[in-house]
Amino acid sequence: MGLTGNMLIGGQAVPGTRDAIKAINPATDQVLEPGYPGGSREHVEQACALAWSAFDSYRETSLQERAAFLESIAEQIEALGDTLVDRAVAESGLPRLRIQGEVGRTCFQLRTFARTVRTGEWLDVRVDEALPERQPLPRPDLRQRHIALGPVAVFGASNFPLAFSVAGGDTASALAAGCPVIVKAHSAHPGTSELVGQAIQQAVAKHGLAPGVFALLFGSGVEIGTGLVSDPRIKAVGFTGSRSGGIALTQVAQARREPIPVYAEMSSINPVFLFEHALLNRGAALAEGFIASLNQGAGQFCTNPGLVIAIKGPALDAFLATARQAVERSPAQTMLTPGIFKAYRHGLQELASNADARLVGAGLEGTGPNQCQTHLFVTCARDFLEQPALQAEIFGSASLLVECDDIAQARQVAEHLEGQLTATLHLDEADTETARTLLATLERKAGRILVNGWPTGVEVCDAMVHGGPFPATSDARSTSVGTAAIARFLRPVCYQNFPDTLLQPAIQQANPLGLCRLVNGQRET
Amino acid sequence: MGLTGNMLIGGQAVPGTRDAIKAINPATDQVLEPGYPGGSREHVEQACALAWSAFDSYRETSLQERAAFLESIAEQIEALGDTLVDRAVAESGLPRLRIQGEVGRTCFQLRTFARTVRTGEWLDVRVDEALPERQPLPRPDLRQRHIALGPVAVFGASNFPLAFSVAGGDTASALAAGCPVIVKAHSAHPGTSELVGQAIQQAVAKHGLAPGVFALLFGSGVEIGTGLVSDPRIKAVGFTGSRSGGIALTQVAQARREPIPVYAEMSSINPVFLFEHALLNRGAALAEGFIASLNQGAGQFCTNPGLVIAIKGPALDAFLATARQAVERSPAQTMLTPGIFKAYRHGLQELASNADARLVGAGLEGTGPNQCQTHLFVTCARDFLEQPALQAEIFGSASLLVECDDIAQARQVAEHLEGQLTATLHLDEADTETARTLLATLERKAGRILVNGWPTGVEVCDAMVHGGPFPATSDARSTSVGTAAIARFLRPVCYQNFPDTLLQPAIQQANPLGLCRLVNGQRET
Repeated sequence: MGLTGNMLIGGQAVPGTRDAIKAINPATDQVLEPGYPGGSREHVEQACALAWSAFDSYRETSLQERAAFLESIAEQIEALGDTLVDRAVAESGLPRLRIQGEVGRTCFQLRTFARTVRTGEWLDVRVDEALPERQPLPRPDLRQRHIALGPVAVFGASNFPLAFSVAGGDTASALAAGCPVIVKAHSAHPGTSELVGQAIQQAVAKHGLAPGVFALLFGSGVEIGTGLVSDPRIKAVGFTGSRSGGIALTQVAQARREPIPVYAEMSSINPVFLFEHALLNRGAALAEGFIASLNQGAGQFCTNPGLVIAIKGPALDAFLATARQAVERSPAQTMLTPGIFKAYRHGLQELASNADARLVGAGLEGTGPNQCQTHLFVTCARDFLEQPALQAEIFGSASLLVECDDIAQARQVAEHLEGQLTATLHLDEADTETARTLLATLERKAGRILVNGWPTGVEVCDAMVHGGPFPATSDARSTSVGTAAIARFLRPVCYQNFPDTLLQPAIQQANPLGLCRLVNGQRET
Repeated sequence: MGLTGNMLIGGQAVPGTRDAIKAINPATDQVLEPGYPGGSREHVEQACALAWSAFDSYRETSLQERAAFLESIAEQIEALGDTLVDRAVAESGLPRLRIQGEVGRTCFQLRTFARTVRTGEWLDVRVDEALPERQPLPRPDLRQRHIALGPVAVFGASNFPLAFSVAGGDTASALAAGCPVIVKAHSAHPGTSELVGQAIQQAVAKHGLAPGVFALLFGSGVEIGTGLVSDPRIKAVGFTGSRSGGIALTQVAQARREPIPVYAEMSSINPVFLFEHALLNRGAALAEGFIASLNQGAGQFCTNPGLVIAIKGPALDAFLATARQAVERSPAQTMLTPGIFKAYRHGLQELASNADARLVGAGLEGTGPNQCQTHLFVTCARDFLEQPALQAEIFGSASLLVECDDIAQARQVAEHLEGQLTATLHLDEADTETARTLLATLERKAGRILVNGWPTGVEVCDAMVHGGPFPATSDARSTSVGTAAIARFLRPVCYQNFPDTLLQPAIQQANPLGLCRLVNGQRET
């Protein structure tokens, strides 16, 4: 198949009718063919009608069928080989090794959800058997399982053109839950989106699923994006992107006759706290580690360490000196799009023009277009506490270090933070009790707390939380990475006094699927 | 203590400063002393500040401590004895036996959540141990638990002055989750609210908890209600009441700088489907059962059967004849408040003036004030499908039967319904396959589906779902009755590479609490 410039709806390749989107290679500013004409409201209507008609059958596919379908998507993506890697590199400006790793992560994620689907734990089956002799009233037989919410609209992210895009975590978890998915492709990587969309479409066909299980649309934020979120057949939204974008979609979802959940992962500056003994004993290593994390993917990670908090003194001065050296030898890196590069420069200018933020150092200047030059600034806690602007996220390799007078002031800074995806503590054993005094605050602020690591690696596993209080996400009760992400697209239904023959296998009395269930208050395995 | 007319804030009895609310005995229209002066924004501020300061310590109480606290609340409520029952009967007009039953239900509910707290399953502990040798990158140690969202504002319902009010399901589940609770008392039963609030306050003191763990406020919807929901220290809302009230609170919560979840249980007409053979074989018993369910609590149940759907024919005519007799001998019953009685009469008038709804029968006329006279109407499916007004909830003993031409039209009616708390099927074995064709639709529409029962009984157990798609509730992903209600007030946090000494017991390596955990993808019990 290869690149055709078409949308994918109902198992067909469908040409758009609006202005064409073309990707730009950010490393060269070269326009990449083909063009992707945008869809219209009619295409939204068509995709939603098909998704709706596919919903009831898809959500009752067996655990085995659904898991095998997810595995087939992974196989189809792997089969794309260099075609996919070449295009993703061209569209994103990301290094080849990084894109290869991301293909692996995407496929691992799909297979992890396949494993999760098979265990059936996400069904959260609860059985309370009838108590016909109970006084004063008998208890009926009650059984609960979780079912899929309905068709889900997914908005891919710019910064992970595979792992957080067409077949990324939102799509994988929604499909795992039993929800048809309609993806609005990110305009920065339409070719990558089409290739991956074709892979999903092939897997849908291979497993004989209703073709409405998946669609891929191109087009404008208003016509396609708002169109999808306001369609009554869409029952949930997954989004990774800017704070303003996430808030706008949430408002559309709330203004519907039937409001729906929006899982928007938006904005985080990921505070890192450096404690006294850690700074004293291994300040130089910490500085090197910090700048390496800051520079990962040109700083274009949701979990980029954009804020460092430490207590002033000689150890911090030494840390800053090493960090400055590491910054100054940081090579410039191509950013994802000319627009993101422009926003990065704008953010830098804002911070540089702030009289209370001092530049510590800047990285090597770029030699090509759209290249991000690493920047590190420093400010004092008093100014940070007074100026909300100093908490603004700069998407890219820029970070701000906040110097505190003492641990009490560091706690004040922590309490003053907005919601975050992560918070990190660097500590030695002798810092343990000091660090402990920050934990209650950080638990209230962040979805994940790390000790002696860097936030930029996000494991795909059962225990991961890639989420956090607003504005990190629009729904702190959820994670968008890891197997618990499936819970976002489910709701419980209770069946009272049903004859066994009318029950789905998950909740039949004989437990034919061998699920781990809660029966009469006891956990059965 | 007894009735004092005061609010309860921070372990103190605090007099309000606004106009006094006085309860009215709906059976006599007699005004009940004392007056309850309303609180002001200062009282909201005080209660929120105390709740916030209590939050971090309360959410880390041990499972044993928290469970014992919930059990103490139940004991204190039981100790109120006839004082509580007398007042609740006077304020609600509900029969004494019903109120005694509701005291029992309330205490059972508190003890059920105590049991749930002790099991610790709600912590959903997940452990992924470090894999230092993994290629290409090692995996860090990752552990997840759930923590409380923060202080919760609870709005009690009018129709269950105990089980859905001050110490009802919302309060019990929020306290179980580790959230301090601020209740805005329902104006219809301030005395019942004060007595139960005192019971909670005594339990807080007995267990040496921070006094901000609980507060009870009286006052206006705007000053107290909106004041609470818009306070940045409130992190979730529990509400049971009208559709307009629930939507208004949701909008306040969404307009905050940091939007918060609102669990509003609002509006449901609880469709009941009568299938052919069931009608033929036991139509008379069904008619009697239906009217008994319709009359429970003067029809003032969220799960009242307000809509019946069946296929026309002699069996349905016979059902209607028996139902009519049962309606006509239904005694009038006192409604909860003069306002609810007025709204009921208004709803009846609307329906009676609809040319396409025909009155089947009316119950005995009332002899005292505020008495609900049972009403049954009938319409045809075509009119029901065309007129959204015929789906409007009438809170009280009124129901509408929809006559369909055939099962296909009954399915059309089902598909046309708004979201519901319940859907009920009455069927005989010979109806099984016909009923099966409705299930996919009903799962999408309702939180609980019943076979051969009536929706008005709502068990407090693990498998219960008292929830459903909008407008039944504002969040279909949740239940407000049963142990799963605790999940509404929790969010996941991940701890990466923590030394064991900094971890709470629930996620320490040795599993000192003996929890059922998911470790490296395997369920441990």
